[in-house]
Amino acid sequence: MHLGIVGLGKMGGNMRDRLRAKGHQVTGYDQDPALTDVDSIGALVSALDGDRRIVWVMVPAGDITESVIAELADALGEGDVIIDGGNSKYTDDLRRVDALATRGIGYVDAGVSGGIWGETNGYGLMVGGPDDTIEYLMPIFDALRPDGPRHEGFVHAGPVGAGHYAKMVHNGIEYGVMQAYAEGYEILAARDDLISDVGAVFEAWQRGTVVRSWLLELLVKALNEDPDLDDIRGYVADSGEGRWTVEEAVQRAVPAPVISAALFARFDSRQEDSPAMKAVAALRNQFGGHATKASADG
Amino acid sequence: MHLGIVGLGKMGGNMRDRLRAKGHQVTGYDQDPALTDVDSIGALVSALDGDRRIVWVMVPAGDITESVIAELADALGEGDVIIDGGNSKYTDDLRRVDALATRGIGYVDAGVSGGIWGETNGYGLMVGGPDDTIEYLMPIFDALRPDGPRHEGFVHAGPVGAGHYAKMVHNGIEYGVMQAYAEGYEILAARDDLISDVGAVFEAWQRGTVVRSWLLELLVKALNEDPDLDDIRGYVADSGEGRWTVEEAVQRAVPAPVISAALFARFDSRQEDSPAMKAVAALRNQFGGHATKASADG
Amino acid sequence: MHLGIVGLGKMGGNMRDRLRAKGHQVTGYDQDPALTDVDSIGALVSALDGDRRIVWVMVPAGDITESVIAELADALGEGDVIIDGGNSKYTDDLRRVDALATRGIGYVDAGVSGGIWGETNGYGLMVGGPDDTIEYLMPIFDALRPDGPRHEGFVHAGPVGAGHYAKMVHNGIEYGVMQAYAEGYEILAARDDLISDVGAVFEAWQRGTVVRSWLLELLVKALNEDPDLDDIRGYVADSGEGRWTVEEAVQRAVPAPVISAALFARFDSRQEDSPAMKAVAALRNQFGGHATKASADG
Amino acid sequence: MHLGIVGLGKMGGNMRDRLRAKGHQVTGYDQDPALTDVDSIGALVSALDGDRRIVWVMVPAGDITESVIAELADALGEGDVIIDGGNSKYTDDLRRVDALATRGIGYVDAGVSGGIWGETNGYGLMVGGPDDTIEYLMPIFDALRPDGPRHEGFVHAGPVGAGHYAKMVHNGIEYGVMQAYAEGYEILAARDDLISDVGAVFEAWQRGTVVRSWLLELLVKALNEDPDLDDIRGYVADSGEGRWTVEEAVQRAVPAPVISAALFARFDSRQEDSPAMKAVAALRNQFGGHATKASADG
Repeated sequence: MHLGIVGLGKMGGNMRDRLRAKGHQVTGYDQDPALTDVDSIGALVSALDGDRRIVWVMVPAGDITESVIAELADALGEGDVIIDGGNSKYTDDLRRVDALATRGIGYVDAGVSGGIWGETNGYGLMVGGPDDTIEYLMPIFDALRPDGPRHEGFVHAGPVGAGHYAKMVHNGIEYGVMQAYAEGYEILAARDDLISDVGAVFEAWQRGTVVRSWLLELLVKALNEDPDLDDIRGYVADSGEGRWTVEEAVQRAVPAPVISAALFARFDSRQEDSPAMKAVAALRNQFGGHATKASADG
Repeated sequence: MHLGIVGLGKMGGNMRDRLRAKGHQVTGYDQDPALTDVDSIGALVSALDGDRRIVWVMVPAGDITESVIAELADALGEGDVIIDGGNSKYTDDLRRVDALATRGIGYVDAGVSGGIWGETNGYGLMVGGPDDTIEYLMPIFDALRPDGPRHEGFVHAGPVGAGHYAKMVHNGIEYGVMQAYAEGYEILAARDDLISDVGAVFEAWQRGTVVRSWLLELLVKALNEDPDLDDIRGYVADSGEGRWTVEEAVQRAVPAPVISAALFARFDSRQEDSPAMKAVAALRNQFGGHATKASADG
Repeated sequence: MHLGIVGLGKMGGNMRDRLRAKGHQVTGYDQDPALTDVDSIGALVSALDGDRRIVWVMVPAGDITESVIAELADALGEGDVIIDGGNSKYTDDLRRVDALATRGIGYVDAGVSGGIWGETNGYGLMVGGPDDTIEYLMPIFDALRPDGPRHEGFVHAGPVGAGHYAKMVHNGIEYGVMQAYAEGYEILAARDDLISDVGAVFEAWQRGTVVRSWLLELLVKALNEDPDLDDIRGYVADSGEGRWTVEEAVQRAVPAPVISAALFARFDSRQEDSPAMKAVAALRNQFGGHATKASADG
Repeated sequence: MHLGIVGLGKMGGNMRDRLRAKGHQVTGYDQDPALTDVDSIGALVSALDGDRRIVWVMVPAGDITESVIAELADALGEGDVIIDGGNSKYTDDLRRVDALATRGIGYVDAGVSGGIWGETNGYGLMVGGPDDTIEYLMPIFDALRPDGPRHEGFVHAGPVGAGHYAKMVHNGIEYGVMQAYAEGYEILAARDDLISDVGAVFEAWQRGTVVRSWLLELLVKALNEDPDLDDIRGYVADSGEGRWTVEEAVQRAVPAPVISAALFARFDSRQEDSPAMKAVAALRNQFGGHATKASADG
């Protein structure tokens, strides 16, 4: 198939390469002249042949995705399909699909997991959309997803929105799993009188144990490169899905103590000083007088 | 009554003053010559008259309390009573009472709340020990506790250990309550576009609202003195009881998400950098490549 | 002043009584013929005299509030003022104020705390709106708020939305504070071998201690009425503000572990069985075989 | 080598089989006549030949392990080695090693992960003890651990205690990871209007995604067997290590919000009714009157 991709960064660029290696024709557009195949989104659409043009959007979620989709909506028409492969909020999908439908343009949301490893390993895909559109796009999904049984690396999760919803929850889980390893790391590292090499412990968990996972393997790699993580600051961004997962849990009355704790730990990690803890310190000063820090609790 | 006090710091010294103001005779010992009434613990014991000498120990929990009680055990005898008013762990009480009983020395544990305000307001008291000993000591407890109905500021919570156990839980609750106000403070302060004066909001909660409390009043005082808490660092110590409360909850299979979250927030507040969050950051680097911070989640 | 109230339930009815007792003229409307003064909202508006008619809306947040305000918007006009005293989300205020402004109708949001005790104690009030409108309404606020200094029971928190925002945070804090006491209760009750009377411990915390508060007094009352809480099921509803507080924290990147834990505990309390814990149980079955429950962890 | 095993249940029995399959001679003792090779621990020790007898203890942690080790201590002597492969607390190891050393008996603690899958996949091993003893036992560890590079399934984590400490943290992490998946499961399942098949989503995460892991594969198996988990109750035991991990975190001032939340969720899952939530419900009744559940928050 001939596919257009908008956004050729670390994700989009690698996906272009993987698709081409699997025999698809890809025309890519990126603002960066060093990356792009064509000069504009208009040129991208013109380059696409066939009666159902397909454009995969792989740009940062939010305003950029919105403006790219708006521009594509003007350039595409009846029967064409836009796939949003970025980390959009599923409620944005629900809004977009209706707007595009008035022009006869199909819309599919695709949650894509795998990071920089996807080009080699394939990308875990969760997609949402109508059966026939997904069917039509399967050759592309099959090229992008990992080798092996299709259902182990790809899911048609439901109607539009389901792909990003599943990806949102995937990332919420990811936050919790990472934080679990991280807390374990700190508890091990706190006992350097007993545990002679924390990295070796994680390394030994890669086979046979209950906690073996791909994230564990990545942590082993990280600890091999920098055994005490001296070169890394404990400052962790968050990219939206974790927050949405907690919001969704709150709105559905689902208890999510682990995922929310992982999210809050990231918020904490980015604060120079915590207003809340200033308030607690102020309170202790009030009831303890100008007491030493150790003796103020009431 | 004539009472001995060992430890005349902010707590013990104020208690001496309150007891004297209420008509009791008090002899105090402190290492600090400026504070002490006598030269040694031995001299303190000698100064006490009557057939049942009473010594209130008001020194930091841990080694100091242990050594003071050991010294008192040697100096006191049959019928005398030691009261530990510090923040000892209740399991230490259970150990001590047996050791002292072999010498005929009585032992009572007293949890004391109220901080520097206790001299004026009276101290909230939770005590553990045998009925007859508590009965004997009631004039002292009545002098120390707040004015008003006895049962609103004093409780004989059970046998030895019960006083410190109740105080432990009191402080665990205190951690949770403080953290609740503190989180609310931060959420209000995050919206300075909407909330014109955060301190004024807390001030207005002092009457009529569901969240009115003494801690709220202290927070109002703190915010009046330093409206943005600019002069206070968000660094919060913990003094044992919060940890023990969580440990006790864990051992009794009691879910304690709020008290433990408040404790962990204090631990967090004291870390220059978090080993756990270094591990999370390292993981994100691994799967996101040298991605920008905002785009690495998987 | 002459004020209209829509909604004469436990809150609105008591407020009518308090306002009348303080010398104001009040006309109330309620669907319930036994409670209402007039037959319809239209009749209520007609009954109000003066050039600036004031109507206080005290109905459940959500659809009912929306429809009442819509009906009032049609009946009122230039210079009139609607006060929403229910637990609306502050973002609803931001939407409404603009819609009403096109008709020249003023809008004020009022967070009201105090429950059934408000009629006697006065209501804690947090209001949002323009200075001149708040100024105009002060006689009403002064009648409703607790006696004592105005700023200890009333705050003009900022522009429209600020009142409900402050109330939202108030309730978020309330969730955390209640949960802190509740966890402490359970930890005390778990040791009935040591603590002879849990209720007596809470009772003794009412004077002198750091954790004394109005909520503590309510818990003492509850434990006096039902010492082991045998007649109460651990099923706890939530009414919106707790969820919004957590959502707001998430959106502002404010760590809120305590308030969210308190919210999740309520969610938990309402589940017959937990889908999440079914998943954990299923996982343990998988790696432990048909192991006994005690031996399955990996 | 010739090895004795005490305890031939699901773990010990499978280990005997794996060791024999790998060419070792094993004599096993179990209370159950259907499982045991010999009649008593004494007979087991007698059956072992060589100058350094080795006995692997694989019985439930706690009293049973203590009594088995005590009996072995009497039967063994200078140069012999006891390995505790159960889930003992690391502090028990520190105590035992000294007691056994007075008799010249060596002691090694071995954390063993892998559950019923270990016989086929090999067991993840974390061991603590002196270099020369570990060296001597390596043929046994090599037979038990998974095939592949030794350091990916085995670690000599440090001196005695380090093996069980590492296993304790392993299980603490496991609790957190399981809970993260479980919360994600519940959030997905809450949207059956959008997600057509939750099991298919988990299935699709097995390749390419960031959250792929062995536990994920087990959850896929569980959901294939029982798609809505209808046959499983959300009742989850805990076996000690999770509690110890939280206690250790508390004692070392390490924030562990995720691991503790996972532990508390298990506690919750086992409560018929929650005393804490009864207290919250009682409080709401107090300030809300006999209000409907939905309207009581203050």
